[in-house]
Amino acid sequence: EQKYKYNIALTVSLLCLDLLPALSGEDTTKSFFQELVNILLSYVCKSFRRSSKVLDFHHPHQLREGLEGFSLELPDQPENLEQLLVDCRDTLKYGVKTGHPRFFNQLSSGLDVIGLAGEWLTSTANTNMFTYEVSPVFILMEEILLKKMQEIVGWSEEEGDGVFCPGGTMSNLYSVLLARYHFFPEVKTKGMTALPRLILFTSAHSHYSVKKSAAVLGIGSENVVVVKCNDRGKMIPAELESSIITAKDQGCVPFYVNATAGTTVYGAFDPLNAIADICESHGLWLHVDAAWGGGLLMSKRHRVKLQGIERAWSVTWNPHKMMGAPLQCSAILVKKRGLLKDCNQMCAEYLFQTDKHYDTSYDTGDKTIQCGRHVDVFKLWLMWKAKGSEGFESQVNKCLENAEHLFDNLKQRPDFELVFKSEPEHSNVCFWYIPPSLRNMSPGPERNRRLHEVAPKIKAKMMEQGMAMIGYQPLGDKVNFFRCVFSNPATQTEDVDYLLEEIASLGHDICIRTETDL
Amino acid sequence: EQKYKYNIALTVSLLCLDLLPALSGEDTTKSFFQELVNILLSYVCKSFRRSSKVLDFHHPHQLREGLEGFSLELPDQPENLEQLLVDCRDTLKYGVKTGHPRFFNQLSSGLDVIGLAGEWLTSTANTNMFTYEVSPVFILMEEILLKKMQEIVGWSEEEGDGVFCPGGTMSNLYSVLLARYHFFPEVKTKGMTALPRLILFTSAHSHYSVKKSAAVLGIGSENVVVVKCNDRGKMIPAELESSIITAKDQGCVPFYVNATAGTTVYGAFDPLNAIADICESHGLWLHVDAAWGGGLLMSKRHRVKLQGIERAWSVTWNPHKMMGAPLQCSAILVKKRGLLKDCNQMCAEYLFQTDKHYDTSYDTGDKTIQCGRHVDVFKLWLMWKAKGSEGFESQVNKCLENAEHLFDNLKQRPDFELVFKSEPEHSNVCFWYIPPSLRNMSPGPERNRRLHEVAPKIKAKMMEQGMAMIGYQPLGDKVNFFRCVFSNPATQTEDVDYLLEEIASLGHDICIRTETDL
Repeated sequence: EQKYKYNIALTVSLLCLDLLPALSGEDTTKSFFQELVNILLSYVCKSFRRSSKVLDFHHPHQLREGLEGFSLELPDQPENLEQLLVDCRDTLKYGVKTGHPRFFNQLSSGLDVIGLAGEWLTSTANTNMFTYEVSPVFILMEEILLKKMQEIVGWSEEEGDGVFCPGGTMSNLYSVLLARYHFFPEVKTKGMTALPRLILFTSAHSHYSVKKSAAVLGIGSENVVVVKCNDRGKMIPAELESSIITAKDQGCVPFYVNATAGTTVYGAFDPLNAIADICESHGLWLHVDAAWGGGLLMSKRHRVKLQGIERAWSVTWNPHKMMGAPLQCSAILVKKRGLLKDCNQMCAEYLFQTDKHYDTSYDTGDKTIQCGRHVDVFKLWLMWKAKGSEGFESQVNKCLENAEHLFDNLKQRPDFELVFKSEPEHSNVCFWYIPPSLRNMSPGPERNRRLHEVAPKIKAKMMEQGMAMIGYQPLGDKVNFFRCVFSNPATQTEDVDYLLEEIASLGHDICIRTETDL
Repeated sequence: EQKYKYNIALTVSLLCLDLLPALSGEDTTKSFFQELVNILLSYVCKSFRRSSKVLDFHHPHQLREGLEGFSLELPDQPENLEQLLVDCRDTLKYGVKTGHPRFFNQLSSGLDVIGLAGEWLTSTANTNMFTYEVSPVFILMEEILLKKMQEIVGWSEEEGDGVFCPGGTMSNLYSVLLARYHFFPEVKTKGMTALPRLILFTSAHSHYSVKKSAAVLGIGSENVVVVKCNDRGKMIPAELESSIITAKDQGCVPFYVNATAGTTVYGAFDPLNAIADICESHGLWLHVDAAWGGGLLMSKRHRVKLQGIERAWSVTWNPHKMMGAPLQCSAILVKKRGLLKDCNQMCAEYLFQTDKHYDTSYDTGDKTIQCGRHVDVFKLWLMWKAKGSEGFESQVNKCLENAEHLFDNLKQRPDFELVFKSEPEHSNVCFWYIPPSLRNMSPGPERNRRLHEVAPKIKAKMMEQGMAMIGYQPLGDKVNFFRCVFSNPATQTEDVDYLLEEIASLGHDICIRTETDL
């Protein structure tokens, strides 16, 4: 703290105009970054300390009003460098430490320091993935990463194409776009009005991005048939087949099935081989959304859960989830080579000149929906160098061991109830906390109504206290339950134990309104 | 160099497993980052030095084969920390210095060091824009930035919504999606087959993303009517009006017009008020693609070129272009509040629970096409704090002064020819270099054929030498010409002069095949 105060005195009277490209700006720039790096690394270290809070919660209006002089308003005149560093510190102070070992809130968690180093370099290079001429190294890294991931999926040497894009929803959108183009290439120029009524299929537990893609692409969300799942959240193949037949009987044209490898809430794996059989017999595009489950392909022990994925025509796989890469890092892998380019190419001459002096097949930007595209590959490439494939394997295995530990604990505790009794397949563990007042109540609507209120109330208290963070949601006929997910290698079994104690202690005395209070 | 070698000795025997979250990983992590920061800052300083090369060009196969031990292949076993630092240095070495004062290759250039600081913090915070609970500060910064940009566009207090998204193409895609939903809300559920044949309009000089959006959204690229431009690259309003009438006569339904404020190649501004009049009289959605030209709104001197932009229903504005923010930073601004949410909302219960304890209108993720979304706002927010609105104004003015300087020089030189004679409106300056062998040739197909080869040949030589970088393209009936653009505040008039000398010296002796060689 002392050191910090001393050093920023250097920057009191300086403005950003004193930094590079100012003529004598090198030293000032280095000093400014040195101060910044101290702030950032102190935050990184704190993120991993169990004694530090996960978050220091404030309501939107409190933050907007400017806490302790932290003003979000945009000035006409410049602020000095000291103030900027204070702003940086405050921005981190009021944020959420997603790398904290007790942050269980969502599928992406953890702060991989090598990935972070990769991001710092990426932003320093500040370039664009659209052409080889401005991103020679990153374009090649993307090619090598995609090839490796395709190989891990199980495609042959001759198969495979792909692109990194901003998130799993975009990857899933690509898959629907490509499937539509594959069967009806005229859609690119003529639009959907030239096509019959298309139908796609996805399970009740799948991610909402499939419906969103149908809405965006002009297919319409009602043309997404939601296929029933079993109790465990897996798509029921017979239900898929009968839905396909029904759609055909109604004169519609089924063309695409999304199977999920690792559902968002339950972490369930759809039976890929059975689904692939159905897709083959009906001639449908099989997409596997392995945004969350793809990481398990790195583990000899767990990859069996994705058996059949090699039969997919396209695969979404987000290394920013289970593999711990910083946000965002998502790949859409496509079996049929050349399709991405045919589907998306517009041949803009100002960018993709064909008379360049190098091999322009490396100008991959014309394969994408985007024009400018952020470099999302370097962090993953550097992590792969740092860990090796084997490092990812141990990391994934460890996350799943944490889930097994949580599951075993929950089975033994009378104050918790599992949402489904079978062993977790992924690192998702779903459960209710049962407060004392509900423990002897018989099942039924009144207990459900009360139980539904428990998780939000506990989460609210947990966020106010700031020592851990976990998500909850209802699903189908299940009222609000907690979903714990592990993707942070910093999390140990002691953190899992802490979480249960924290929930039990916050939940023990919560006040649930009885019917007469309503 | 000596210092560097000494320090990395510390990391020779260490692996990433010795870094955080390892138990005693704090010191190792700090040392590793210290080394990395030395590499990155040395690159930053070099980027601004005119004596350093812009790029060290290698062909794809050369890089793939592994230059001087720089292997891109992904290992099974981990590499040590020293090797990782060497990999980082090599990645930068073989890349392109987009921040170099003599990098004129594209609309996004420059390395704003405050923006860079913002990116380092953003990646350290490693969070997701989908909900307030994990991004409280960034969500509010986005709101404040969007509000400010809407105010600058000229919308009233009661109007305005928006979102930052991954690039101008995505922003333009949002605009078409929103326009379609506004007129035909049933498209979200029923798809395009429930709709009449929709037609949209954009100019011949506009960005290809409008056609791409039509292809992606299922409207079809043939349903984009390309409206003629004048010699200066501006849309001709009378042509727009007659195209609209023709489309209606053919039984189609016009619904959307894209006007460009700052075209990609010429930097032309479409006459917004005249186009807005036509849109109003026909009841069409007016989108203004100000991805490139939006920055001029910051300048009292230049914002007059966007007169009428306040009449747009939506606006694309990329601060990563003219305002120098690191890639990516693009906003889609929407006049009608609530439309983004109505159009894109899917109400996923695992993410957008309605029983949270804070004001969930701040969970803005349901307004977007994406689910997970990178934090693109902090860098811009920090830059705004550092420069103030006035700092952006001087920056923009300076870029346009460089363009004027180049234009004035070109007018006076016999070895160059301007593509159009009028003063540049934006920072784009388009020109041919005329090698000695063509100077006395009369205009016609043979001169055109030869002139077409000049720019690619010069660019190839320029990339091999690596001292500057500029783009070229053909456009309409114009054969390949150079397009110089200024968005890098590090560029001085001396760099502009250097560029012309460099082109002249590289081009003086180039060998253009005569017809008999073919």
